[in-house]
Amino acid sequence: MAAPVSTAASAPAAVPVVPGAVGRWFAEVGERTYTRTRRIPLDALEGWHTDARTGDLVHDGGGFFSVGGLDVTAPDGPVPHWAQPVLHQPETGILGLLVKDFGGVPHYLMQAKPEPGNAGGLQLAPTVQATRSNFTRAHGGLAVPYLRHFRNPPPRALIADVRQSEQGAWFYRKRNRNMIVRTTEDVAVLPGHRWMTLPQIHALLTAGDVVNMDARSVLACLPPPPGPAGRARHTGREILCWLTEVRSRPGLRTRPVPLRGLPGWHRAEHAIRHDGGRFFEVVAVEVRAGGREVRRWTQPMLRPCGTGVIAFLHTRIDGVPHVLVHAAAEPGGVDAAELTATVCCTPENYAGLPVAARPRFLDEVRDAPPDRVLFDALLSEEGGRFHHALNRYRIVAADGAGAYEAAGDFRWVTERQICALLRHSHYVTVQARTLLTCLRSLHGPEASR
Amino acid sequence: MAAPVSTAASAPAAVPVVPGAVGRWFAEVGERTYTRTRRIPLDALEGWHTDARTGDLVHDGGGFFSVGGLDVTAPDGPVPHWAQPVLHQPETGILGLLVKDFGGVPHYLMQAKPEPGNAGGLQLAPTVQATRSNFTRAHGGLAVPYLRHFRNPPPRALIADVRQSEQGAWFYRKRNRNMIVRTTEDVAVLPGHRWMTLPQIHALLTAGDVVNMDARSVLACLPPPPGPAGRARHTGREILCWLTEVRSRPGLRTRPVPLRGLPGWHRAEHAIRHDGGRFFEVVAVEVRAGGREVRRWTQPMLRPCGTGVIAFLHTRIDGVPHVLVHAAAEPGGVDAAELTATVCCTPENYAGLPVAARPRFLDEVRDAPPDRVLFDALLSEEGGRFHHALNRYRIVAADGAGAYEAAGDFRWVTERQICALLRHSHYVTVQARTLLTCLRSLHGPEASR
Repeated sequence: MAAPVSTAASAPAAVPVVPGAVGRWFAEVGERTYTRTRRIPLDALEGWHTDARTGDLVHDGGGFFSVGGLDVTAPDGPVPHWAQPVLHQPETGILGLLVKDFGGVPHYLMQAKPEPGNAGGLQLAPTVQATRSNFTRAHGGLAVPYLRHFRNPPPRALIADVRQSEQGAWFYRKRNRNMIVRTTEDVAVLPGHRWMTLPQIHALLTAGDVVNMDARSVLACLPPPPGPAGRARHTGREILCWLTEVRSRPGLRTRPVPLRGLPGWHRAEHAIRHDGGRFFEVVAVEVRAGGREVRRWTQPMLRPCGTGVIAFLHTRIDGVPHVLVHAAAEPGGVDAAELTATVCCTPENYAGLPVAARPRFLDEVRDAPPDRVLFDALLSEEGGRFHHALNRYRIVAADGAGAYEAAGDFRWVTERQICALLRHSHYVTVQARTLLTCLRSLHGPEASR
Repeated sequence: MAAPVSTAASAPAAVPVVPGAVGRWFAEVGERTYTRTRRIPLDALEGWHTDARTGDLVHDGGGFFSVGGLDVTAPDGPVPHWAQPVLHQPETGILGLLVKDFGGVPHYLMQAKPEPGNAGGLQLAPTVQATRSNFTRAHGGLAVPYLRHFRNPPPRALIADVRQSEQGAWFYRKRNRNMIVRTTEDVAVLPGHRWMTLPQIHALLTAGDVVNMDARSVLACLPPPPGPAGRARHTGREILCWLTEVRSRPGLRTRPVPLRGLPGWHRAEHAIRHDGGRFFEVVAVEVRAGGREVRRWTQPMLRPCGTGVIAFLHTRIDGVPHVLVHAAAEPGGVDAAELTATVCCTPENYAGLPVAARPRFLDEVRDAPPDRVLFDALLSEEGGRFHHALNRYRIVAADGAGAYEAAGDFRWVTERQICALLRHSHYVTVQARTLLTCLRSLHGPEASR
């Protein structure tokens, strides 16, 4: 691992100032491609309705997504039972990244994309971000640019094609296909698109909230850098067997329930809120867009009530870099626990809970002295569904490998071991995928493919 | 692959005649360890009740398993919508196999186990077969013999530990841990247990319905035999990407519903039956047992209405053996399609459906000339839940590699590729795991570990 590119926290910029050529490009694109978002009352949603029987928020055409309720039982947790709203989006969409070599250097076709939930407007997105309704054109509409590269690509052109989960605290069993396709064809670069190298993308991870969640997720599915693996603390088989043991315990039990009358939540004019003001709200927005096919629409969004802390503890074991993963289940997970960040929480949500419920290692990553902070950036989650969902992503040097694994369901693993699991679904959360991409940004340009 | 051990169909013996020393051992054990099963009316179940609201069959203590209803939508299938009863057993149990070297040869500790659904009484089971309620002794009761070898074994003693699915047409999201643990300790052989080599177990696969489903499943999780891999038709990455594409299509949508009033089904005195007499029945049995802790009990069981045909087509591609797997979803699957046998169906269930709905390759495997039948045996599924659930398992030589893959979601894969997938959950069905164990029985003793 090379020297960290940044040890200072980025300013929580409402509008990120993107440096250099990419910044100038963003400024140009932003003049014609933008979204302006305004909160509106829930009853002012157009094209959406509140289901008469369940109170769920659903689209009139039955597509896109819906907001329902979820009843959760967690026999072994500090909170043994709760209910919460949850987003349902059963279709599997495509997050597609096109890669092509120029002068022997791989370049990735990135898109400057605005989303209504973004605090700062444009973000850097993968080549294609499309729901199944988008790309099968179930609702009519224009063809998705570059989509043809991701429909039935020749098997040998596929660098990655794997369904991965997204926020299991907010979505019910959501996943998207993360696809990376290599091309040797001539590709026309449409307005709002740009070929970029991995070091260029990596450099933007700490330049404000620029690289969007989908790009971070799909970049994490790149194969590991070439070179010797180094001896890991545990073998791959041991990690799998450990995860089997964790997943075989009685875990969360969930049951979709009506949104109306959800215990502990209430619907006000502008939001569905937790009675204690915690966790998140379901809000409604009106969006006016430039540079998109649809110029104006309204939609529900999920707005988190606090800023999360998502961090890997990092150390070297016999000279080999390791990060500390946590096996944890989320209510919307497809299949029990996945491996997530060492710390992955919104600290405000733990107010009022006993000290034993407090996330392990939160203080260590939040209060780390600057010389231990290898990576630090305020990044947001998917701006198409989440409104200003900011999380502080950190990689923090641990104090040796010590007793960390004794804290419960934690294990030291190497980057290469996470990569091996990312060939399969439902092993690595979207938050851990973001951190893996951040971790790789520390390697320096020589490790880029 | 060595010469096939049997090309003739075994007789569908009601009581299997087990040859040799194992047969004598079975006869001895069978004198004190047995179950006698008698059908009784559903209302005569003791310790079980019909839920007043849903009509579900549930255990009074809330444990064991329950029978509910499932509503299934399959937009692209020949039957776009149906309802059916389904077994719920949310706990993850253990199927554990203990292995120890004697004179350098691995021996597996097998158990002669009776189950109420077995047509022939005793079967050969793994060392431990225990539900979570069994081994946590939630219902009191004696300790499960040998269980300690499977609770927190040292990581390096674990040959396999992976959750695998079971019959997704009958169970809702059921899985068991398939564990293989190597020991070097002295192990006392309790009555009803016996150390056996892999060739000894393999030889019994065609000696009547002797090797039980759980043993077949856990044996499939053994690592592949040593030796060069041989070039596969598709790379492992290509198989995974293909499966991602299949699994990303809109698939089965399921919803648990009450058993009472399930469309197309009715409850009679002795069974819950399909109106057309097809698929399966839910029946009740009284069991009298010898050699078990509980001497008498009653329970519901699922009784299939026909005998299934479950087969791999087999061929050599550039000299390397391959089998044809089918990616198919079942209503009770945890996560979309799994890889199953080339043919996996009960032919009677397709009576009355259009010809297009007929399973592909059924005629080819059922009507194969004897010299193409590499393996053939009538084997039953889990006798603790299923009553006389017999399937004809076959491995049939295909006519080259030809156009088989063009038939839809079929791919030629090697044994080694199936083994690699079996390190993970939810890739390979229990029927395909049985066939993998049958396939290995054809290798001959030299390939045994």
